[in-house]
Amino acid sequence: EENKTMRTQKNDDYMPSLITDTPLEGRMLAITMVRKTIGAIQQDGDIKKAVRKEYQDDAALLMRAAELVAIEFKTIAIANNYWRDKQEK
Amino acid sequence: EENKTMRTQKNDDYMPSLITDTPLEGRMLAITMVRKTIGAIQQDGDIKKAVRKEYQDDAALLMRAAELVAIEFKTIAIANNYWRDKQEK
Amino acid sequence: EENKTMRTQKNDDYMPSLITDTPLEGRMLAITMVRKTIGAIQQDGDIKKAVRKEYQDDAALLMRAAELVAIEFKTIAIANNYWRDKQEK
Amino acid sequence: EENKTMRTQKNDDYMPSLITDTPLEGRMLAITMVRKTIGAIQQDGDIKKAVRKEYQDDAALLMRAAELVAIEFKTIAIANNYWRDKQEK
Amino acid sequence: EENKTMRTQKNDDYMPSLITDTPLEGRMLAITMVRKTIGAIQQDGDIKKAVRKEYQDDAALLMRAAELVAIEFKTIAIANNYWRDKQEK
Amino acid sequence: EENKTMRTQKNDDYMPSLITDTPLEGRMLAITMVRKTIGAIQQDGDIKKAVRKEYQDDAALLMRAAELVAIEFKTIAIANNYWRDKQEK
Repeated sequence: EENKTMRTQKNDDYMPSLITDTPLEGRMLAITMVRKTIGAIQQDGDIKKAVRKEYQDDAALLMRAAELVAIEFKTIAIANNYWRDKQEK
Repeated sequence: EENKTMRTQKNDDYMPSLITDTPLEGRMLAITMVRKTIGAIQQDGDIKKAVRKEYQDDAALLMRAAELVAIEFKTIAIANNYWRDKQEK
Repeated sequence: EENKTMRTQKNDDYMPSLITDTPLEGRMLAITMVRKTIGAIQQDGDIKKAVRKEYQDDAALLMRAAELVAIEFKTIAIANNYWRDKQEK
Repeated sequence: EENKTMRTQKNDDYMPSLITDTPLEGRMLAITMVRKTIGAIQQDGDIKKAVRKEYQDDAALLMRAAELVAIEFKTIAIANNYWRDKQEK
Repeated sequence: EENKTMRTQKNDDYMPSLITDTPLEGRMLAITMVRKTIGAIQQDGDIKKAVRKEYQDDAALLMRAAELVAIEFKTIAIANNYWRDKQEK
Repeated sequence: EENKTMRTQKNDDYMPSLITDTPLEGRMLAITMVRKTIGAIQQDGDIKKAVRKEYQDDAALLMRAAELVAIEFKTIAIANNYWRDKQEK
């Protein structure tokens, strides 16, 4: 049976495409992907708030969160060909 | 002799292909790959439940799980050419 | 509702483009991206100062910060085609 | 003198090629590569059993092992061109 | 205001180019990049010495440092097309 | 002055090229690169032996070492075009 902890809520398509207009928008999509994935792994609101409280002033965990954003951003940057063609316009 | 802990149950082909229609489906395949790999490394149901209990409200471990999803997703995104051609249709 | 902790201040576009003239400038953009992302995840000034105090003399955390810079730099280096064409000029 | 801890037993060529027929076979090769590499780093059977006992019910270490599989799988997936041409047949 | 901890000393351009003649030189550039980045994050000489003392006999931190070198080396290897053309000469 | 801790002994060119005949040889080169890099970071023989004793029966550290090998192997695999052309011969 599908492990309910890891089920991504299909109705909430937070990532219809990896294409964005600018690097900054790509960065925000990366942040959304990290949040939504943690949300799919742990769907309980209270636990998510407790987890947030745990990492929000912890240097190691804040850097962990930043690393997750960096890993997703790399995928998005390649998908958008590094927004190079945006330069020529 | 094949180390039984790491044997992947051949009958359960959870990954016949890396190709998916949308980024979100690619994300769900990535989550399945993480779950199934941990399942291949540790096949005992009780231990898996205990492990789940251990990480489900731990900020560092939740971010760890999210990182595994991000690493698998990168492979799937490249395999699907970032669903770019889906854009033009 | 948008998770306010992860909201990136849209007005502060610290990354209009990934293109830089030299590897060193690419390195400084990578450092800015890490700082701004941690800033987006944790916007409270006092907490950021406390976090800074925590990691600034901790070997493991300093290496963590250096790793984040290395991951962002890799993306920027590819975006700039490794500044190869800068060689020929 | 060759550091014996890191010597890979040349006779046991567990990786004659990176090419596999299916993603699942690629996944199993990745798992074998992780096992054999740890085996090359630590060749003592008793220690390997003790290490197995240590990680087999530890969430952080199980995720670590899954990450190693994910990193090797990425290399194998690229080597097999993501089994794309297998799709057309 | 520019976060002074992360300011890279512009005058000290330790990385005018990513191109090197041999893999070994690429490896040494990677090591320099790691050192200089940690130096940009933490510019205080005494703290740097204390940090050095902390990691120089710690297995986990030494491997951390080796990982940072490996990540930078990957970028440099691609930039130099893996020194393949050096083979043909 | 060159930071002596990170100086790689130029005379010992353990990596004249990234090209190897087989994946297994590529794996052994990756293991050598990890050993030599840790050796460059920490050149004191006694400390290296103490560090070896520390990680040789520690699950987390053994997996760390295996990860370093996996990261280097990825670079070598790409350099050798995944030994694909070796298949056709």
